[in-house]
Amino acid sequence: MSNDLLLVTNNEKYSAKLKAAFLSRRPEINVLLADDSGAERATMALCWHPGKDLLTRFPNLQCLHSVAAGVDHFGAELLTSGLPICRVVDDHQKQGMLEYVLWGALTVQRNFDKISANQKESKWQGFRQRPASDVRISVLGLGELGQFVARGLAQFGYSVSGWSRSPKNLDGIHCYQGPEGLTEQLKETELLVNLLPLSPATKGILNKDLFNKMPEGGYLINVGRGGHLIPGDLIDAIDSGHLRGALLDVFDQEPLPAKDPLWTTKGVTITPHLASDASLPTIIEQVADNVLSFVSKGELTNQIDLINGY
Amino acid sequence: MSNDLLLVTNNEKYSAKLKAAFLSRRPEINVLLADDSGAERATMALCWHPGKDLLTRFPNLQCLHSVAAGVDHFGAELLTSGLPICRVVDDHQKQGMLEYVLWGALTVQRNFDKISANQKESKWQGFRQRPASDVRISVLGLGELGQFVARGLAQFGYSVSGWSRSPKNLDGIHCYQGPEGLTEQLKETELLVNLLPLSPATKGILNKDLFNKMPEGGYLINVGRGGHLIPGDLIDAIDSGHLRGALLDVFDQEPLPAKDPLWTTKGVTITPHLASDASLPTIIEQVADNVLSFVSKGELTNQIDLINGY
Ligand SMILES: NC(=O)c1ccc[n+]([C@@H]2O[C@H](COP(=O)([O-])OP(=O)(O)OC[C@H]3O[C@@H](n4cnc5c(N)ncnc54)[C@H](OP(=O)(O)O)[C@@H]3O)[C@@H](O)[C@H]2O)c1
Ligand SMILES: NC(=O)c1ccc[n+]([C@@H]2O[C@H](COP(=O)([O-])OP(=O)(O)OC[C@H]3O[C@@H](n4cnc5c(N)ncnc54)[C@H](OP(=O)(O)O)[C@@H]3O)[C@@H](O)[C@H]2O)c1
Repeated sequence: MSNDLLLVTNNEKYSAKLKAAFLSRRPEINVLLADDSGAERATMALCWHPGKDLLTRFPNLQCLHSVAAGVDHFGAELLTSGLPICRVVDDHQKQGMLEYVLWGALTVQRNFDKISANQKESKWQGFRQRPASDVRISVLGLGELGQFVARGLAQFGYSVSGWSRSPKNLDGIHCYQGPEGLTEQLKETELLVNLLPLSPATKGILNKDLFNKMPEGGYLINVGRGGHLIPGDLIDAIDSGHLRGALLDVFDQEPLPAKDPLWTTKGVTITPHLASDASLPTIIEQVADNVLSFVSKGELTNQIDLINGY
Repeated sequence: MSNDLLLVTNNEKYSAKLKAAFLSRRPEINVLLADDSGAERATMALCWHPGKDLLTRFPNLQCLHSVAAGVDHFGAELLTSGLPICRVVDDHQKQGMLEYVLWGALTVQRNFDKISANQKESKWQGFRQRPASDVRISVLGLGELGQFVARGLAQFGYSVSGWSRSPKNLDGIHCYQGPEGLTEQLKETELLVNLLPLSPATKGILNKDLFNKMPEGGYLINVGRGGHLIPGDLIDAIDSGHLRGALLDVFDQEPLPAKDPLWTTKGVTITPHLASDASLPTIIEQVADNVLSFVSKGELTNQIDLINGY
């Protein structure tokens, strides 16, 4: 076995950039694009939206690696193929996610959303300084990103709770589990931050029922995946006055089409899937290390749980 | 001498609220409004924009107390009357100021200003995640608020420098002094945060000359006073493309008149003087303590330097 790595993304420029980065940082890895000769002998593939026919095209693959934290882009067939799947874990990405969510939290706490709506009418309207501890933030998903964000928000003084599948014990963060836990938690939620992975169990979780369980005036930050949200339910919840607004970074279709009503829904801020990047040097290091350890010892770091799908 | 405290503000409702708060929290203080009988015997006055005839109206005054951090609202005549002047120092206010400035810093670092301009045209345009350490922030004024803000920004990872009149030595913060220091500092400044007090030496300091010393693409946060800024110079610097934008909380005339061009200058965010509040309980405690210690021992806490005027 040699240090081959097949590279399959849905973006030629991105593939070229990754390939060049491997060459300069980890030249011992033999990066092959799908059309390169010898590509079919690779046993590991580094992917972003590889397409469901990947294993038909490359039947020698024994391991799949995501370039990102999320693995939903592999699609159901690859996720259930039985091959081990790895993701990237990156401190720079965690920090970026905290920055993004903190900007949203400060926007809610200090009313920058209302103030900028007022500016459109040259309206001067004061708001009292509210302590961060008054703002109850619930983080859905307490994985690599969710835990880091929850801790950072708590450190900044917010009242933070978290939600996960399995029980957790985190200093200073009230932890809930499972469907009943979520219902309980939502009652006390002003700001809901979604950092769940997209899976059959979490698809469409940000829907009417969930919004109705939140108190009036609640706000949503969706940094998970577009598939978590039912956009029409969000628009209804905002239009009816039940929710205050939302900060959305991810969408079912990206780029979000220009005619999508979310662009112009009052109180909705749209950002173009940039909450956080995995840094190129980290991607290269982690993937290269995994190639070497897989080849030499059959061992992998940052594997997902194939049963849970994340 | 009794525990009299004259209360003079430019807002009847605010005066009534302060008076009620003294009554419930520190009933031993005898709060007198200007029209109350016996008001003329008070030796200490708690003020917000008291007007320059204060000492003519109340010749027994021996000490002036601001309800806020700033004392510029006393005006030149009272500031140079020779009477000792005190201000409020409040942790809640410091935290509020950090929150406000951090929101502005995140806006610049993570491009939320450009993203929200794009949203108006349903434009999807990505921005790379930039590390906080890439953003060079200069804080003008390293007093109670400036030091707290500078430290908080540095802790969050920004590259922070500070400017003051006298030399300072602050861990992790590059400190500059005096006019030459400022010129030096501005060259390396992407985000300029003004937390100076308004005085004859700082009036109009945020002007064309200063903006020209900043690199292209710089951004201003003015949380000092409106009098620090020459608004026309800022608008020119933004319109010409030299500056990226500004977040402004304070204005020469407040409320900012609806026809003021700042409201509609692209890249300018207007907030209605709410960056931070001194909290009512803290104001009451500090002023009441100063009344008692002035009466019993002639001693005062949080006095300003009458020569420097802040
Ligand atoms: N917008 C962006 O720029 C961006 C960037 C990076 C990542 N993301 C998104 O963020 C997601 C989370 O990333 P991560 O690295 O933190 O994921 P992770 O480490 O896999 O953690 C996932 C967390 O979600 C919880 N969870 C999963 N399914 C659940 C369910 N059905 N009910 C309750 N909790 C459930 C897990 O619970 P247990 O702990 O009990 O297993 C875990 O705490 C990614 O999948 C990706 O979609 C977005
Ligand atoms: N927007 C709001 O909501 C809000 C709220 C509170 C306060 N403020 C404003 O913030 C201002 C600052 O408050 P603070 O409590 O931090 O003031 P402070 O404790 O009096 O500190 C003032 C700082 O500015 C420096 N300074 C003064 N004149 C200078 C000059 N000519 N050149 C260089 N540095 C100079 C001082 O230098 P030295 O250390 O060398 O003396 C000191 O570091 C207040 O005066 C008020 O206008 C605004």
